[in-house]
Amino acid sequence: MARWEPDARGRLTEAALQLYLDRGFDATTVADIAARAGVTERTFFRHFADKREVLFDGAHELEHLVTEAIAQAPASASAIDVVGEAMVHAGAALQPRREFAVRRAAAISANAGLMERELLELAMLARATADALRRRGVPDPAAALAAEAGVAVFKVGFEEWIGEDDPGDLPARIADARRQLAAVVAPRRASQALRTISSTV
Amino acid sequence: MARWEPDARGRLTEAALQLYLDRGFDATTVADIAARAGVTERTFFRHFADKREVLFDGAHELEHLVTEAIAQAPASASAIDVVGEAMVHAGAALQPRREFAVRRAAAISANAGLMERELLELAMLARATADALRRRGVPDPAAALAAEAGVAVFKVGFEEWIGEDDPGDLPARIADARRQLAAVVAPRRASQALRTISSTV
Repeated sequence: MARWEPDARGRLTEAALQLYLDRGFDATTVADIAARAGVTERTFFRHFADKREVLFDGAHELEHLVTEAIAQAPASASAIDVVGEAMVHAGAALQPRREFAVRRAAAISANAGLMERELLELAMLARATADALRRRGVPDPAAALAAEAGVAVFKVGFEEWIGEDDPGDLPARIADARRQLAAVVAPRRASQALRTISSTV
Repeated sequence: MARWEPDARGRLTEAALQLYLDRGFDATTVADIAARAGVTERTFFRHFADKREVLFDGAHELEHLVTEAIAQAPASASAIDVVGEAMVHAGAALQPRREFAVRRAAAISANAGLMERELLELAMLARATADALRRRGVPDPAAALAAEAGVAVFKVGFEEWIGEDDPGDLPARIADARRQLAAVVAPRRASQALRTISSTV
């Protein structure tokens, strides 16, 4: 009975997103999504567990990109360099999908439950990132702290990228957020070092 | 019909926590909790929306402690100092409740759904913290980054405090995690400044 359904997954995703934006997430049913995509509900459930999963399909891929990049980083790199580069790498993979990312963010921000789920995905990314650092031998609390820092930097870079009319380049925005985090977290370390030196020379 | 029920809320919390630890969260019903606390189910629902909320009752209080401390910080303080002090302040308020915190953490870590909810609460704390910084005039991305840094520091200090046999002092652990975050995020800034100076003097 199974028909050949070229890119049913892609069409279901597009149909769901458009319906969420037009009518809202709560008012959209799986039957609506399947009908708009021209497939059966059964086909929907072969691809997605429920209508929420359509929007969070990419979370596993993001986690995979980040943890793989961490595993492959040079042994000599510091924890924050490893995480920073992994986030930039993940950003490069998302770069071609900005239009989808912007529409997806609009659908999510219109629904409190979806916003909570998005926050949870980022928290799970931080946990997976910390575990990947621990597998490289990074001790705690450095592993946990570097992972939280990395996800914060990804989140800020990503939100700027989807939120501004001149989006620029996602990897560059993430790298820039990393520099800003260093300036926020340790604003006086460099200047304190200078002061210490200049009072001793 | 309402009877006088001294500290029904406290007894319900204690009964629920003990049942979650003994039988597991999923196997415990509201009826079990109410019976153990010696109150009716109706009394349970006067205090808590459902059996999960018993464990997350303190989240609003934590958020309130943090955002109030941020609002009252000196105008001249940097974003990271404001957030760091607010987290230490919240830690001081939790300090007397370590035994409860340890048992609560054990109940949560035994259940995937509760762990997700705990991650979500921390993500919501980061959001509220960023909003409190914005109300002080801290611009983005500094507000978002300082908030994420503050919550990461709170989380790491808190986990050390509940996880170790010699727990020490929660506010001191949070302050220490903040120093470690600075060392993780900007490990070379101070030494780079030193190198620049020593090559120029």
